[in-house]
Amino acid sequence: MPNPTAAMLVIGDEILSGRTRDSNLHHLARALTDHGIALKEARVVSDDHDAIVAAVQALSARWDHVFTSGGIGPTHDDITADAVAAAMGAAIDVREDARALMAAHYARTGSELNEARLRMARIPDGAVLIENPVSVAPGFSIGNVHVMAGVPSVFEAMVAGVLAALQGGDPLLSLSLQVQRPEGDIAGPLRDLAARYPDLDFGSYPYNRNGVSGANVVVRGTDGPRVNAAMAELAALFPEGVA
Amino acid sequence: MPNPTAAMLVIGDEILSGRTRDSNLHHLARALTDHGIALKEARVVSDDHDAIVAAVQALSARWDHVFTSGGIGPTHDDITADAVAAAMGAAIDVREDARALMAAHYARTGSELNEARLRMARIPDGAVLIENPVSVAPGFSIGNVHVMAGVPSVFEAMVAGVLAALQGGDPLLSLSLQVQRPEGDIAGPLRDLAARYPDLDFGSYPYNRNGVSGANVVVRGTDGPRVNAAMAELAALFPEGVA
Repeated sequence: MPNPTAAMLVIGDEILSGRTRDSNLHHLARALTDHGIALKEARVVSDDHDAIVAAVQALSARWDHVFTSGGIGPTHDDITADAVAAAMGAAIDVREDARALMAAHYARTGSELNEARLRMARIPDGAVLIENPVSVAPGFSIGNVHVMAGVPSVFEAMVAGVLAALQGGDPLLSLSLQVQRPEGDIAGPLRDLAARYPDLDFGSYPYNRNGVSGANVVVRGTDGPRVNAAMAELAALFPEGVA
Repeated sequence: MPNPTAAMLVIGDEILSGRTRDSNLHHLARALTDHGIALKEARVVSDDHDAIVAAVQALSARWDHVFTSGGIGPTHDDITADAVAAAMGAAIDVREDARALMAAHYARTGSELNEARLRMARIPDGAVLIENPVSVAPGFSIGNVHVMAGVPSVFEAMVAGVLAALQGGDPLLSLSLQVQRPEGDIAGPLRDLAARYPDLDFGSYPYNRNGVSGANVVVRGTDGPRVNAAMAELAALFPEGVA
């Protein structure tokens, strides 16, 4: 069975303006790879209703899972929950289970569950809550779309919760060889090797350190013996390589 | 006149697998903001011909400019130039001007201009070369699509070259106020303020440091006096705020 596929949708003007450097994509990419889910595409859109709706619909139709980050806080520009509900054709309002979670939390901490905070209890009909062990306001899953916060500590905790409940695939294995030779000298032999292992992925990532050119060559696949065999051939081609 | 718009397309399995952390999006976002071009969307796709073609066509039809990074090296998985040519309906082959640049460089450095390296001289008909002051192999612009390398030092040099020749817009001004109050207490007054300045963007970016919650509130716009006036009102609402 092929591994499940996924896409990520990052929502937030602050990423596109360069104010904030996104770290959630990299975290999710690693977590999905470890879980045997293949991340196939990512998009970043601004805090714009129509842009979020269009991206959610395109990605959820195309891939097995969609993971979103950002736009579920208390401020006027946090519009992700309503946009995802619209994209999935679901009604949305303050939901009692989410409201109760937040009321209990704010009662404990002595803050007011005001109108702004109540926005964070807006959950589409039919959605399942995603626990937020950091700051309580939950995410949610509706259909194949998992809606999570943008604050990295909260995002990471929510990803762990969602993945624990998701069927993964065979873990994607990866071996790499650092070859201190210009990539243009590696490319020919690498192409011929890749042609003989069509079931594996071969990547080459050039670097230049202190004027010395080289590349990290990576072999990826789900079949351990095949990955090992390809790496053995690669190491024979480039005996100066360092694993 | 509204500011020109742009999208970014990052090409590379290594970003989606989590092997590499992309830094080009953040660099481009800042460079475009400084140049008065509004980055509206970004996508990351794998080294897949059809995925690159579809993304280039969608983004180039929608936005004023498209900037791509990755997939223009010498290896078999570097397929960006051919995919962009297909997306734009242009023929592509080794082009004499690019080949001559690379031949001169490799003659100087004593490396061979082999078949793999010659792939980097594949340039679509009608494209304008983008100079690569780091490692010579050029990028190119065709229509509104600017095709650049993924290696950050090369990408950054190419962005500088492209932007120097592109008409920008009014620089986007931005002021921020750090408010040590939970975002749920900021959201209501901020929404009312934002409603009175519909020509500006207001963003709120929560943080939690050592158990203390706060948010950075950001006001953005191209009209300096309006941005200043909104920030003055914001500072009056949250007198404990730090600029």
